[in-house]
Amino acid sequence: MATTQKVSTTINGVAVDALLATIEAIKSTPTLAKFRFRIRNQWQSGSRNCSTVSSFTGANQELAHPQPFTLEADEPAILLGNDLAANPVEYLLHALAACLTTSMVYHASARGIGIEQVESFFEGDLDLHGFLNLNPKIRKGYQGIRVSFKIRANVPDEQLQEIVQLGTTYSPVFDSLTNGVPVSVTAERL
Amino acid sequence: MATTQKVSTTINGVAVDALLATIEAIKSTPTLAKFRFRIRNQWQSGSRNCSTVSSFTGANQELAHPQPFTLEADEPAILLGNDLAANPVEYLLHALAACLTTSMVYHASARGIGIEQVESFFEGDLDLHGFLNLNPKIRKGYQGIRVSFKIRANVPDEQLQEIVQLGTTYSPVFDSLTNGVPVSVTAERL
Repeated sequence: MATTQKVSTTINGVAVDALLATIEAIKSTPTLAKFRFRIRNQWQSGSRNCSTVSSFTGANQELAHPQPFTLEADEPAILLGNDLAANPVEYLLHALAACLTTSMVYHASARGIGIEQVESFFEGDLDLHGFLNLNPKIRKGYQGIRVSFKIRANVPDEQLQEIVQLGTTYSPVFDSLTNGVPVSVTAERL
Repeated sequence: MATTQKVSTTINGVAVDALLATIEAIKSTPTLAKFRFRIRNQWQSGSRNCSTVSSFTGANQELAHPQPFTLEADEPAILLGNDLAANPVEYLLHALAACLTTSMVYHASARGIGIEQVESFFEGDLDLHGFLNLNPKIRKGYQGIRVSFKIRANVPDEQLQEIVQLGTTYSPVFDSLTNGVPVSVTAERL
């Protein structure tokens, strides 16, 4: 049976035609751009807790993942945990790595730049004098994070740097983490 | 066979005697407080990439998790992914949730405050005009994150608020995300 098919333009696994269509749709209906992501976390015991990621709002719709994702957290033994899952500050590095990589790949794809392989390494320094309140001059959070990307792509050296800059320029997590986000917190009795 | 046993003091699943011993050890040997967490990320295709969490440095030792943890990332279909895993900005919420909860529980435990149950909800607003570079005035990252904790504990109302403040005061991810972290990025050819 003969059918008419729209051939999609996919670069680096990104449906570039859909990406460009999204941009056009947002230009004509700006509220489509508003997204709201959410999770629910439940404490288990000690260092163990677990988040459920099931729904989000975007493009003027309530949307759901096909199945909820469960994200466990724990601490290693040296930080008094059971070492059954990555710890919160390791998850933060993953969020940053995943977002830089995806942002880079999407924006490179939109520009028609083919990427063959990407590996990256993330390392952050923490001094427990902060968390344990032993020295008020030492911050609780990461003092600094070092990122190193290795990329295989058939581009000149200058463009290799530009590809990575697409990540740092457009990544929502990179912006959130380097520039900070206002976080409001309320508490009530369960 | 009779043995001499040290009875450990555990509150909320946290070995408080070990926590206090850690504090004393750091007071006498400050370099024990220095930790370095790391991950390695590999791009798969499009919106899919994967981090491996296997080792870290802390307390003047090279340490390894008993087994490497694998953290997948994807995007939902509306953001051109395959929806096989949570996305980077959802992971960021999980990192924040896990860290606030663990920080709160550890510090409450050190103060002898018993906590029975903790649930929390995290929601963040993103406007794709930023990521898609359609409006330079709209940031790429989260515009704001709202956190709501529900806690069951046999404490007066004021102390319920104080318990949550232990989280916001000491959490490394909360500090990192609200105050920002310097991130340095390099790129080389693979």
